[in-house]
Amino acid sequence: MSLLVQKFGGTSVATAERIESVADKISGFHKRGDNIVVVVSAMSGETNRLIKLANRIDETASSREMDALLSTGEQVTVALLCIALHKRGCKAKSYIGSQVPILTDNAYSKARILDIEPSRIQKDLAKGQVIVVAGFQGVDEQGNITTLGRGGSDTTAVALAVALKAEECQIYTDVDGVYTTDPRVVENARRLDSITFEEMLEMASQGSKVLQIRAVEFAGKYKIPLRVLSTFNEGSGTLITLEDNLNMEKPIVSGIAFNRDEAKLTVRGIPDIPGSAARILGAVGRANIEVDVIVQNVAQDKTASLTFTVHRNEMKKAEDVLNKVAIELGATSVESDENIAKLALVGVGMRSHAGVAATMFDTLGKENVNIQMISTSEIKITVVIAENLLDLSVRSLHSIFGLDQDTVDL
Amino acid sequence: MSLLVQKFGGTSVATAERIESVADKISGFHKRGDNIVVVVSAMSGETNRLIKLANRIDETASSREMDALLSTGEQVTVALLCIALHKRGCKAKSYIGSQVPILTDNAYSKARILDIEPSRIQKDLAKGQVIVVAGFQGVDEQGNITTLGRGGSDTTAVALAVALKAEECQIYTDVDGVYTTDPRVVENARRLDSITFEEMLEMASQGSKVLQIRAVEFAGKYKIPLRVLSTFNEGSGTLITLEDNLNMEKPIVSGIAFNRDEAKLTVRGIPDIPGSAARILGAVGRANIEVDVIVQNVAQDKTASLTFTVHRNEMKKAEDVLNKVAIELGATSVESDENIAKLALVGVGMRSHAGVAATMFDTLGKENVNIQMISTSEIKITVVIAENLLDLSVRSLHSIFGLDQDTVDL
Repeated sequence: MSLLVQKFGGTSVATAERIESVADKISGFHKRGDNIVVVVSAMSGETNRLIKLANRIDETASSREMDALLSTGEQVTVALLCIALHKRGCKAKSYIGSQVPILTDNAYSKARILDIEPSRIQKDLAKGQVIVVAGFQGVDEQGNITTLGRGGSDTTAVALAVALKAEECQIYTDVDGVYTTDPRVVENARRLDSITFEEMLEMASQGSKVLQIRAVEFAGKYKIPLRVLSTFNEGSGTLITLEDNLNMEKPIVSGIAFNRDEAKLTVRGIPDIPGSAARILGAVGRANIEVDVIVQNVAQDKTASLTFTVHRNEMKKAEDVLNKVAIELGATSVESDENIAKLALVGVGMRSHAGVAATMFDTLGKENVNIQMISTSEIKITVVIAENLLDLSVRSLHSIFGLDQDTVDL
Repeated sequence: MSLLVQKFGGTSVATAERIESVADKISGFHKRGDNIVVVVSAMSGETNRLIKLANRIDETASSREMDALLSTGEQVTVALLCIALHKRGCKAKSYIGSQVPILTDNAYSKARILDIEPSRIQKDLAKGQVIVVAGFQGVDEQGNITTLGRGGSDTTAVALAVALKAEECQIYTDVDGVYTTDPRVVENARRLDSITFEEMLEMASQGSKVLQIRAVEFAGKYKIPLRVLSTFNEGSGTLITLEDNLNMEKPIVSGIAFNRDEAKLTVRGIPDIPGSAARILGAVGRANIEVDVIVQNVAQDKTASLTFTVHRNEMKKAEDVLNKVAIELGATSVESDENIAKLALVGVGMRSHAGVAATMFDTLGKENVNIQMISTSEIKITVVIAENLLDLSVRSLHSIFGLDQDTVDL
């Protein structure tokens, strides 16, 4: 008899009918003998409905009151899911954040979980009850309602799995697992049976938005096996776990992540004075613009050029900042380009295999793809290329690294 | 600087726009220097929306989960009202039941308030904040969410007024006070400046549904002046208070209450054996049918006949019960009539004035209204008459007891 924490997102509980399907699934597991703790999000659309309602009054509403408002979304779902479970003869009890309690800090709208007191839930589990917990929310020491920010239900699920020492934390979603790359770009993309936490983090931060990054970090830190699987189809999904647990024949590259959300900025002709890069990036940071890939080169004339990427929505803002700093520093020009894409090969296997980068650059070269920026880490190689060459590049790399699905499905 | 508890019902906060109007009103009082604790209901329609959602899954949902579900309605309103108050530069803080805390027993869907801990609210009041409390809900000793039943927000308001020793508890609603009778029936019906708790209880239980009975009882018990007034119009409304505080020239009759919700049942030819009435009413009670007016007479042949009224929806059910009991007792017949109405004169002045009943019966007689049942208490005379004669009867009595509005308003 194992203890599972299962999280169902907003799409999975979007209507009364879907809540009933989820209840069918859960009561099946429960009858099989598992101890189940369920975490649910608000019915999809509900959080936006509440935000709209608040915005009609004031678009700059205080975050304490926004948290009190938005936390009702999950509260509705836990009650409805328990009602559906009871109808199936399955004992179940709802918990909102303050009832567990899930203790957080006081950072409204982006609170961090400080502690989860497991004893009340454990008592109810011992009585054979399915525990249904409202995701995304908690309570601070003064009893104020807090929320963990969008997607925070994944974090709630992992934190509960840690606190209750669960066997596995299962994230039910509308995809049936983590893929080698986006199946909309590469038809032969393959569902991965397993992936390491590190790889998943790299995949997630690169735009494979299956799981919230915080939840993956959290699960990795506490070594809780995490599984992504589909609410609507059968299947074992993708298990995210420690490297040790994986089979020996781990492929070199596990997946290809990419995104089209970024823009590239370059400052040229920066006088070669110590601290120039820091002054430029400092100014960008003070304007609250997040910087992603950064590359610096020294040109023949001994001046430097600094290139970095930001979210596309912030390109104009970043350009304004750079134009000012460029004058102060005596740099020669500021350039920007929003027609770029970022592509990353991810895989723990890279650590022990030289030549992955060489194969990657060679493949892109043969396709006449000019690599504008390169950045590497132990398990990832990121390149920035022209946006219109992205799909072609992803397909070629997917094939060359053997990620394609077997064409014959037996 | 006085402390006021103000309650705004569902119609008063039905839309974002109305919530803004309520915020205008409250911030006005606050600027004037009053300490304000506001109690709000769910936006009208919201509770029904949630009930429908639950009913789509199961119409016999557990009351614990229904309470968790329904309590979100008020939580949404408190957050939105605080957002609207902040926008007006008015410091405000929302409280849900468990945050106050409002401690109740464990009777889900009809919980009773056991205790209110005022210290947290008092601390925030001392900081100059308007306190906005979710009505209708509380929390039991185990931390479960409970609700007080429909209309329970009035009770929340009165209980807070008691706990905080407020000067007055003001119930804002869509009528501008308590009237001598329903203005839809008697055009000249007059708003009462004041009425006693006892009178209000009799008016309320007879169908003048301005205030929840429990709230009136509660306010009376703890001597908290209660005021009913309009959210949408100016005016001082109706003050419900102790008899002592009213002026000397209190009229004999304060108002006329009536309803058309009941049906009448009669069992005839009951053998004159001790305990017969108890057996009949006992059987009705065991079937969970509530009985209102009861009259028993002994006929010439020494058999008795028992007549009582029940809610019209339960007439058929009551008839079935009576038919069985009648056979057991050897009674001769069971009759039912749903074309009846109940009418009551209410007034503390009756206590010291004989002749009110005589005037009432005389007036009805002159109008050829046959009185089917009579029941009296210290401050009320109730009669049951044919439904089609109700309007006529109310108008005649309203006029004869001098309740009509002066036709000339100076």
